[in-house]
Amino acid sequence: MKIAIMGFGTVGSGAYETAKNAGGIDIVRILARHGRPGYEHLDDIITPNIDDIANDPEIELVIESIGGVHPAREYVLACLRAGKHVVTPNKNLISACYKELMDEAAANGVKLRFTSAVGGGIPWLFNLLRTKRCDEIEEVRGIVNGTCNYILDAMYDKGADFGEMLKIAQELGYAEADPSSDIEGTDTLRKTVVTTNLAFDTVVSEDEVPCCGIDTIQSCDVAYLKEKGLVCKLMMKAKRSGDSFEVYVEPTAFPAGSLEANVKVNNNLITLTARDIGTQSFYGQGAGMMPTGQSVIQDVLDIRDGKEQAIEAGSSALKADNSKAVHRYYIRHDRMCEHIEPFIDIYEEKDGIYYCISKPVAVEEMHKMGHHRKEKGKEMFFAALAE
Amino acid sequence: MKIAIMGFGTVGSGAYETAKNAGGIDIVRILARHGRPGYEHLDDIITPNIDDIANDPEIELVIESIGGVHPAREYVLACLRAGKHVVTPNKNLISACYKELMDEAAANGVKLRFTSAVGGGIPWLFNLLRTKRCDEIEEVRGIVNGTCNYILDAMYDKGADFGEMLKIAQELGYAEADPSSDIEGTDTLRKTVVTTNLAFDTVVSEDEVPCCGIDTIQSCDVAYLKEKGLVCKLMMKAKRSGDSFEVYVEPTAFPAGSLEANVKVNNNLITLTARDIGTQSFYGQGAGMMPTGQSVIQDVLDIRDGKEQAIEAGSSALKADNSKAVHRYYIRHDRMCEHIEPFIDIYEEKDGIYYCISKPVAVEEMHKMGHHRKEKGKEMFFAALAE
Repeated sequence: MKIAIMGFGTVGSGAYETAKNAGGIDIVRILARHGRPGYEHLDDIITPNIDDIANDPEIELVIESIGGVHPAREYVLACLRAGKHVVTPNKNLISACYKELMDEAAANGVKLRFTSAVGGGIPWLFNLLRTKRCDEIEEVRGIVNGTCNYILDAMYDKGADFGEMLKIAQELGYAEADPSSDIEGTDTLRKTVVTTNLAFDTVVSEDEVPCCGIDTIQSCDVAYLKEKGLVCKLMMKAKRSGDSFEVYVEPTAFPAGSLEANVKVNNNLITLTARDIGTQSFYGQGAGMMPTGQSVIQDVLDIRDGKEQAIEAGSSALKADNSKAVHRYYIRHDRMCEHIEPFIDIYEEKDGIYYCISKPVAVEEMHKMGHHRKEKGKEMFFAALAE
Repeated sequence: MKIAIMGFGTVGSGAYETAKNAGGIDIVRILARHGRPGYEHLDDIITPNIDDIANDPEIELVIESIGGVHPAREYVLACLRAGKHVVTPNKNLISACYKELMDEAAANGVKLRFTSAVGGGIPWLFNLLRTKRCDEIEEVRGIVNGTCNYILDAMYDKGADFGEMLKIAQELGYAEADPSSDIEGTDTLRKTVVTTNLAFDTVVSEDEVPCCGIDTIQSCDVAYLKEKGLVCKLMMKAKRSGDSFEVYVEPTAFPAGSLEANVKVNNNLITLTARDIGTQSFYGQGAGMMPTGQSVIQDVLDIRDGKEQAIEAGSSALKADNSKAVHRYYIRHDRMCEHIEPFIDIYEEKDGIYYCISKPVAVEEMHKMGHHRKEKGKEMFFAALAE
């Protein structure tokens, strides 16, 4: 099969390397502004012009690994309209433009697949779809951001400071120069949207998903929770309930003896619960050149061989509804005022800081409070207590 | 697709229920001596005669869920020779007759698949094969016997006695009336053979795999290990090294903060390490009517839709060779004699029992010693220390 790669960064080159091992995939064009060091033998097939790919009738499938929404969206649309299958690891694109792109693929009789958009090298989305062939998904949840897990694990393990560990994560290449999308939860939010859309055959938008990250966590939070036998992780969660589903992203405190609590360094752990099969978890490297590149090529092989799982984009009537989502939280707050007091079940005060365990609180309420405090530049961190 | 089910016990009825949900699978014959309570509407399609299935040209695929090697082998051979695909969860059969059955399937241009033979509801073997399309498996390992894990978890968690927990496992239906194949490791051994054959494209026989179970573990072992921060699990392991691979089954002590140590009740956790993708783990229910029944139907759907992963039975030159497999062990022994002393690094004596940590010992040597002591009716238990 003749294919092209758009964007020749970390994932694009990982896909290139994996394709060599898999065999039977002929990479004939690469869209890039310039060649990549170590890949000078590919200079002849590099082009900065999307038309060289979209208008080439020999190319049957295109890998989009540019990242971001624009111009990835326009390039993917051009390829789909030209009758080419598209494979992408781009969660930003699929989160933002899922229905539009799936509809365009269907209209042109081609496939769009993105197994690598959540969980990197872990065959999460593929197996989620496979389970749906003969079961019904009740819940999806997981640790899907390796950078946050790396930071949280080091804070737990070594008692390290948040800022210090973020800096090390950046030096190791886990976190971007601008790490906000990781630590504020936006990356997890996008993966939640992509996963939820497949799990429930729905189309949820990013602004329907309450999202709080770990950017306000401090070593005192980790120490307090550790003392109670709890470990904090940043979680995506979507859970079916009748005709709707809860869906949100928030820090969550797990018992030290749970699988989630024992996910180390930058690994991911993603879990589904289905009606018949019960709970299944998938663990591994959620990012990186070879893991993500391999998942991209797995999608290419599935499409080439007619083995991809079916996707029915937006075919269900299930809607996002967090109005009944309620649980207890750990909350650190700088004072015990009339806004916070009604929520609190038990608390300890130490050096003017209040470490609290809440009564059951609505998820939407808790997130609103968190964002409000953050906007005002006030001290606050919260983590749901895992059920 | 018209199919038949041979054997209508727990897994056969789970497959029947799942097929109803999946749709497009028409169960036209069931091989059984008599009907099943609650399934009286199927009495008309029940037959005790294999010829009614093997000679029916309408039946394209047969599920074998009789269990055991005979007559399952003969019935499966009859179906393959009649040009029918076969799907089976029967690890005893696939462990004992893998090459013969795969060759017979190939000779007749049909498929034989057994995703559910290891890990029950966990899509372990399917994803192992999928990874092999573009990567090389270096190691497979895992907790694949839910009964043993249930017993070991309860012993760790509640300080319970082995015999007491075995009895409860039997009452809950996790363990058979004769639990020897679980607790002596034979069930794990067979799953190891099935997994290893796929991981390394080899054909290994059961007697090439050193195997020790958990039948001699006592609460004092669990307590000693717990004090050292270790948790005992029964593990399968196969690891590639050059032109050969190590392969064995033995109790293994994991640090309390590892994923393996935190596998609760009767769950399974199975792990692969591959050259490019690194380490991936798969967690869930390793047995049971609906989980195993669903994996059976997943194989049926894959064959029906041409989506099954390729198997090249015995195509590699890799051979089993444990001569270089060496590690440290925890050993409980009733005396410090000239046979045991050379192996021991450190030990504690308490009430005439020696709790030891060994120097690095050859796996084959350690297993030989274990079996020798057991034959003599002497007290001994050992567990490898996880690397």
